[in-house]
Amino acid sequence: MIQRPRGTRDFTPQEMETRRYLEGIFRTTAETHGFKEIATPIFEHTELFTLKSGPSIIDEMYAFEDKGGRQIALRPELTAPAMRFFVNDLTNYPRPLKLYYFGPCFRYERPQSGRYREFYQFGAELLGAPNPESDAEVIGLAAAMIRNSGLINYHIRIGHIGVLRDKLCSAGAKSDQAPLILQKLDKKMYDEARPIMRGAGMREEDIEEVIRITQLIGPVELLKDFPGEASDYLGQVFQVLRDFGFTNVQVDLGVVRGLDYYTGIVFEVDAPNLGAEKQVCGGGSYSLTELFGGERVFSTGFAIGFDRILLALDKEGLKAPEKRLDAYVIPTSEEMRHRAYMITAALRKQGVRADVDLMRRSMAKNFKYADAMGARFVVIVGEKEAMEGAVMVRNLSTGEQRMALLEELPTLIKN
Amino acid sequence: MIQRPRGTRDFTPQEMETRRYLEGIFRTTAETHGFKEIATPIFEHTELFTLKSGPSIIDEMYAFEDKGGRQIALRPELTAPAMRFFVNDLTNYPRPLKLYYFGPCFRYERPQSGRYREFYQFGAELLGAPNPESDAEVIGLAAAMIRNSGLINYHIRIGHIGVLRDKLCSAGAKSDQAPLILQKLDKKMYDEARPIMRGAGMREEDIEEVIRITQLIGPVELLKDFPGEASDYLGQVFQVLRDFGFTNVQVDLGVVRGLDYYTGIVFEVDAPNLGAEKQVCGGGSYSLTELFGGERVFSTGFAIGFDRILLALDKEGLKAPEKRLDAYVIPTSEEMRHRAYMITAALRKQGVRADVDLMRRSMAKNFKYADAMGARFVVIVGEKEAMEGAVMVRNLSTGEQRMALLEELPTLIKN
Repeated sequence: MIQRPRGTRDFTPQEMETRRYLEGIFRTTAETHGFKEIATPIFEHTELFTLKSGPSIIDEMYAFEDKGGRQIALRPELTAPAMRFFVNDLTNYPRPLKLYYFGPCFRYERPQSGRYREFYQFGAELLGAPNPESDAEVIGLAAAMIRNSGLINYHIRIGHIGVLRDKLCSAGAKSDQAPLILQKLDKKMYDEARPIMRGAGMREEDIEEVIRITQLIGPVELLKDFPGEASDYLGQVFQVLRDFGFTNVQVDLGVVRGLDYYTGIVFEVDAPNLGAEKQVCGGGSYSLTELFGGERVFSTGFAIGFDRILLALDKEGLKAPEKRLDAYVIPTSEEMRHRAYMITAALRKQGVRADVDLMRRSMAKNFKYADAMGARFVVIVGEKEAMEGAVMVRNLSTGEQRMALLEELPTLIKN
Repeated sequence: MIQRPRGTRDFTPQEMETRRYLEGIFRTTAETHGFKEIATPIFEHTELFTLKSGPSIIDEMYAFEDKGGRQIALRPELTAPAMRFFVNDLTNYPRPLKLYYFGPCFRYERPQSGRYREFYQFGAELLGAPNPESDAEVIGLAAAMIRNSGLINYHIRIGHIGVLRDKLCSAGAKSDQAPLILQKLDKKMYDEARPIMRGAGMREEDIEEVIRITQLIGPVELLKDFPGEASDYLGQVFQVLRDFGFTNVQVDLGVVRGLDYYTGIVFEVDAPNLGAEKQVCGGGSYSLTELFGGERVFSTGFAIGFDRILLALDKEGLKAPEKRLDAYVIPTSEEMRHRAYMITAALRKQGVRADVDLMRRSMAKNFKYADAMGARFVVIVGEKEAMEGAVMVRNLSTGEQRMALLEELPTLIKN
C-alpha cells in the first residue's frame, strides 16, 4: 500500500462535512462584514517569503527548484501572497479594500499533535484605512468568526506595539537594539532580554518596568497607567469594539508578535483547551506592500488556524449538523427499476438528496444500506402503488409508513 | 515587484464569486445525487502517479525531493489519491461508496490558453456496484452538473472499450498488441495504428472496419450493428440514463481513453466553443485499487475541468449572480459614529452584508464609495432620526429615500 506523505491528512466524508460547515460559517461571517474573497496559487517564488520573514524560513518550507530552474516554495502562509497580489493588480480598487482567503499552507517540520505539514488557514486583510475603527473592524471580524463557530472557551488579547517601543525609547534603549529586545520579550525570554537591554544602555528599574508591562493582561482601564499616543489609539480601538458588541476582549501589552513589519495594534486569540498549541488566531497592523515593490499602504489583518479551531470545537464536544441522505429509493421488482430511477431523478431535481438501489439488492439488504447511510426516508416503488401514481414512504426515524402521491413526495420529504 | 509563478493565477473578488458560484452548483448537485466529499493532500509520493500512469508522467509533474529525501509530487490529478485513500482507509464503508472531491492540480508544461500549471478539477467516483445502472448514475451526475451549470452547447459521448477490444480479438489481433493499438486509435492516429494492426496479424478489411468503428458517433440505435456483450451493456446504460431524464447523450465507439486501467464504459463531454481544448469532462469504469495494494473493486468515475467549464460558460455569456453589499452605513457626524457601528453590527448579526464608513469621509465621498461597492442601500445615521430610534434609508437603485425604525431595518434591506 502507498501511504500518504508524512504530516498530511486525508479527510473522510464525515470530516469534510465538519470542515465545510465551519468554512461556511467563516465565509458567511466575512461576507456579512463586507470582506470579499481572493485566491492565490499554492506555490510562489521562494523570494516572496524570504523577503517577508528572512532567509531562515527556507529551512521550514517545502522549497524546491522547478524544471525551469526557478526557486519555488509551497506557501507557508497567506499574507505575503495576498500582499503580492494587491501590489501587482489590486491597487486601483476602491479603499478600504477588505479581502479574505482560505486554503492549505505548508511547513516542513516534525509533525506533532495539532501541527501538520499541510494545514489550513483562513485570513483577512483590510487595506488603506489608517484608523482605530478599521483595526477594530478587523479584530471584530476575527471575534465574530470565532463567536459564530460556537466556541465557548477562548480569550482575545489586544496590545499595541507602540507602548513597549515608546517605553524602550524613553528608557534610552538604542533604537537598533529594539527589534531584538522585542523579539525576546514576545517569547517571554526574560533571561535573554535582560542582558540585551542592559547592553542597550537601560537602567535596571526601566528594565524591570518593561518586563512588568509585558506581563500585564486585563481590562481596558489598565491603559490609564501608560499614557501616550499608542495607549490612546488602543483605547479608541476598544471603544469601537464595544460599539460592535465585543466586550470579551482584554488589553495585553505583552502581545508583541516579534516581527519587524508590525506597526501598531497586535492581537491574539487562544483556546486554553488546546494546551501548548493554544493560539488559534494572530494578527495586527503591518506594513508589507513596500517590501514587495508597492507604495506604503496601511494594512491590518489576521490569520486563523482553521485546524486548531476545529480541534478546540471538538474538545468542547461541538458537532456540525449532519447532512443526511433524504431519501433512499427501492424498487420492489425488476419491472419497477425504471420507475425508481425516474422518481429518484425527479426528487433530485427538487433539491432532495436522493439515492437509489444500484445493486439490485433484496428489500432487507436495501433497508440495511439505507440505515447505514443515515437515510431519513425510504421510498418503496411497488406495482400496486404505481397504478395509482403513488409510492410507499417510510420515515426511518418514526417507523411510520404511508402511501404518497408522486406530486406530494418532495414536500413530504423536505419537511 | 515579485510576480506570481508562471502558469498560475490569482483570482480577484469578482472571479472568486463566479468560481464559488459554480463550485456551489457542482457541490449541491453531487450531494443531491448522494455523493459525499473527501479531500486528500496537495502532494503525494511520486510513486502513486507513476504506478498509475507510467514513469513518463514525472516529466509532466512538479516532482521534487523533500528535505527527508522522499520523492514527492504536486498531484497532477485526483483519481489516484482518492483510490489510495480508499484502499488505505475506506474499504469498510458501505457500498456502493459514492465520493466526490474538488481542488487544485498541477502540471509542468508550457502554459497556453485554457491550460494552466495550476488548474482545478472536480471529480467523482462510485465504488463497488458492477452494474450498468451505477455507470449511468456516474454519467448522470456529470450530465446533471453540466446541465445545472447553465452551459447550453456541449456534447456527451459514451462508448464501451469492449466493443473495439472484442473486434480486435475476433479479428485475430495478438492480445499484447491491443493496448498500443487502442492508444493510437484513441488519438485518432490512424496512419500509425494501421501498420501496428497489420503487424498484429489483422486483415486489411478488419483494419478498415476497426477504424470505421472509431469514427461512429450517433444515437443508441447504432449499437444494433455491433451485437455482443459490451454493446448490450452499453444499451442498458443508455436505458437508465433515459430513465434519469438524460436524452442528450450519444454513442461514440471511438471514445477509447487509451489507458490500460479502463475496463468498460468510457465517456467524454466537450464544449465546441472551446476549440482545440474542448474536452471539459472525461471518465469511465476502471480498475486501480489493486494497483495500489487493495482488492479489485469495480469503480466508475470522472473528472471535470473546472476552469474549462468556466471558460465555456464565459464564452456563452453566462454570469454568476452578483453578491452585492446590502447596506453601507454612514454617520452624519462624529457623535453619530458609535451609533453607526452599533447599527452595522446589528445588521450583520441578522445576516445582512453590511459595511460602515471606516475613513471618516464626507457624505459625498461616502456615497461615491457605496456606489463603487455596488451597495443596494445606504443607511444614514443622523441625530434627528436617532431621537426617534430611526435612520434614513436610501435605495440606491431607485433613489427612493425614507425614514425607517431600527427594528424594521433588517427586513426592509433583506427584501
